[in-house]
Amino acid sequence: MFKERIDRVIEKMKEKGLEQMLISDPPSIFYLTGKWILPNERLLALYLNANGNHKLFVNKLFTVDGEIGMEKVWFSDTDPGCEIIASYTDHSKPLGIDKKMAARFLLELMELGAGSGFKNASDCVDAVRRVKDAEEIEKMKYASSLNDQAMAEFRSLIKEGVTELEVAAGMNAIYKRLGTQGPSFGPLVSFGANAAIGHHKPDGTVLKSGDCVLFDVGCKVNDYCSDMTRTFFYQSVTEKQREVYEIVKKANLAAQAVMKPGMKFCEIDKVARDIITEAGYGPYFTHRLGHCIGIEVHDAGDVSAVNHDVVEEGMIFSCEPGIYLPGEFGVRIEDLMLITKDGAVSLNKDSKELEIIP
Amino acid sequence: MFKERIDRVIEKMKEKGLEQMLISDPPSIFYLTGKWILPNERLLALYLNANGNHKLFVNKLFTVDGEIGMEKVWFSDTDPGCEIIASYTDHSKPLGIDKKMAARFLLELMELGAGSGFKNASDCVDAVRRVKDAEEIEKMKYASSLNDQAMAEFRSLIKEGVTELEVAAGMNAIYKRLGTQGPSFGPLVSFGANAAIGHHKPDGTVLKSGDCVLFDVGCKVNDYCSDMTRTFFYQSVTEKQREVYEIVKKANLAAQAVMKPGMKFCEIDKVARDIITEAGYGPYFTHRLGHCIGIEVHDAGDVSAVNHDVVEEGMIFSCEPGIYLPGEFGVRIEDLMLITKDGAVSLNKDSKELEIIP
Repeated sequence: MFKERIDRVIEKMKEKGLEQMLISDPPSIFYLTGKWILPNERLLALYLNANGNHKLFVNKLFTVDGEIGMEKVWFSDTDPGCEIIASYTDHSKPLGIDKKMAARFLLELMELGAGSGFKNASDCVDAVRRVKDAEEIEKMKYASSLNDQAMAEFRSLIKEGVTELEVAAGMNAIYKRLGTQGPSFGPLVSFGANAAIGHHKPDGTVLKSGDCVLFDVGCKVNDYCSDMTRTFFYQSVTEKQREVYEIVKKANLAAQAVMKPGMKFCEIDKVARDIITEAGYGPYFTHRLGHCIGIEVHDAGDVSAVNHDVVEEGMIFSCEPGIYLPGEFGVRIEDLMLITKDGAVSLNKDSKELEIIP
Repeated sequence: MFKERIDRVIEKMKEKGLEQMLISDPPSIFYLTGKWILPNERLLALYLNANGNHKLFVNKLFTVDGEIGMEKVWFSDTDPGCEIIASYTDHSKPLGIDKKMAARFLLELMELGAGSGFKNASDCVDAVRRVKDAEEIEKMKYASSLNDQAMAEFRSLIKEGVTELEVAAGMNAIYKRLGTQGPSFGPLVSFGANAAIGHHKPDGTVLKSGDCVLFDVGCKVNDYCSDMTRTFFYQSVTEKQREVYEIVKKANLAAQAVMKPGMKFCEIDKVARDIITEAGYGPYFTHRLGHCIGIEVHDAGDVSAVNHDVVEEGMIFSCEPGIYLPGEFGVRIEDLMLITKDGAVSLNKDSKELEIIP
């Protein structure tokens, strides 16, 4: 499986005229070797060469058990890591670099002339990671099914006098009880006007009657992430809240209905955005429609106006339109979508009907 | 306070012949502006210019309230972030880059010719962050005093039949009860032979009589980190365990006794390492003696054989010698040390006498 993934990456490298590449991103290294190594500030790099002479450069402080189909090159804290890497690379050829390599390593590799040029070649890995294989799809479905179960239980946390932080603690406990590896981010819960603030973190805000309650939540299971958003209303809903909710739901459903292989990410974004814009709320939908997801909650690739890449079968990304009215409230509805042979299916089954929690 | 810190960074830049620099590292941006912004995969950069024309480049999705003593340049997900930055930088002069800037931004800034050259200038910030001011020292002392309290309570988690994971859960609960922001890493607890494995993570291993129990733990309080290690023995101790423990303790104390401004980091490492080597365990002390610490648990700068930098008053770093006997046991004893005018004091007061937990 790992060999097949690496071969697909090398195909992509060749398309870009690259014969060698260094990958430093731990999730990509996990994807290509099955080993999770979190080096923090230390050097870690997977070197791929089209001639098959791959190497994993790793600090002796970390444990990498068993065969990984390539040589492990060990070094210690006092060894010159970049020099060791540069002694293996082909200095006469361009060297692909993944997008996350830290400047301290990249600038040193440049000084050492480790390649004849340096090119951001992340897409060679990212494009492969973006298209999930059968095993990954099963894991993603399972993670989202647990997320649906969690969301069903989160509703019970909404009650008189509770704070966002108390709800967040309850959410963490529910994820734990469901046997997940924990939240894949946050998790986020926002009451009332807080739901209109981008990236608001749970705080001591107390729930009030008439508040919207926005849950943006995900869990990690078998190293794969889920991510969904639901917005409820506590005890009552105003006409304006209902109007905004129905527009967001319409945008969510319309975008999902058009998704299929062969169309562009930007076209999907446009379907949802047009609905919100035509309803007069365009300026209040302040972010992209979605993002790819897999080993990371934000895998490379987004569903936005500037992404002209073509959607393929096996891709999984979020569909999360929203309308945020500063000082009033915010609504977002998000599902994870799997692109199938001729359409798309939502990995989330939780209801999207407007729901008033008594 | 932030202006003074920025001015100190600019002094360091001038010493390196740099008039401009881009900083992307969130902890450094927090240190220089007081704002914690975690952009994940998005672009975030603080631009410092010796002429005082500083800018913070930040995505509209994030909240940066209030005055920060410089212009905030906002952009959205669909704006060309690097091009916006390059429209402000001086293309005729070299541009300092912090060590963590991701390759995707650095390579694009290079293509745009944002500077006449690109240089790893992290040390301009790191050297300033390494020397703590009075307020930071108070915060570091407080974080370590809570860590001492926590360690005192961790002893009570050691009992018949417990697993590492159960102890880790108990540790998290204790940190929470003590009012910390949570662990600053891990936290780590290792039984018996697991303590000899670098970066071993708590698992289902069950405590056995005669095991060593290694706690490597820290908490975050007021955004500053603590970090300490103690190794106990459960119910009994062998002669070999006692011998190894006393060597490690001797190395820990000897290194602390020599620390003072003006000496080199590598000289401190050597004092501890020589004691362990002379006792015949040199090959089993497999890591550096310590690392700087502050806003991050691993601040830049380590106490190792390859660091010839000079120690200054106000620096805080760990002193953590260890001996790891594969398949048998491991011992590490770690304190945080504050360099004073003419010596050093330990921020950790917890006992280092050999302790058998009944």
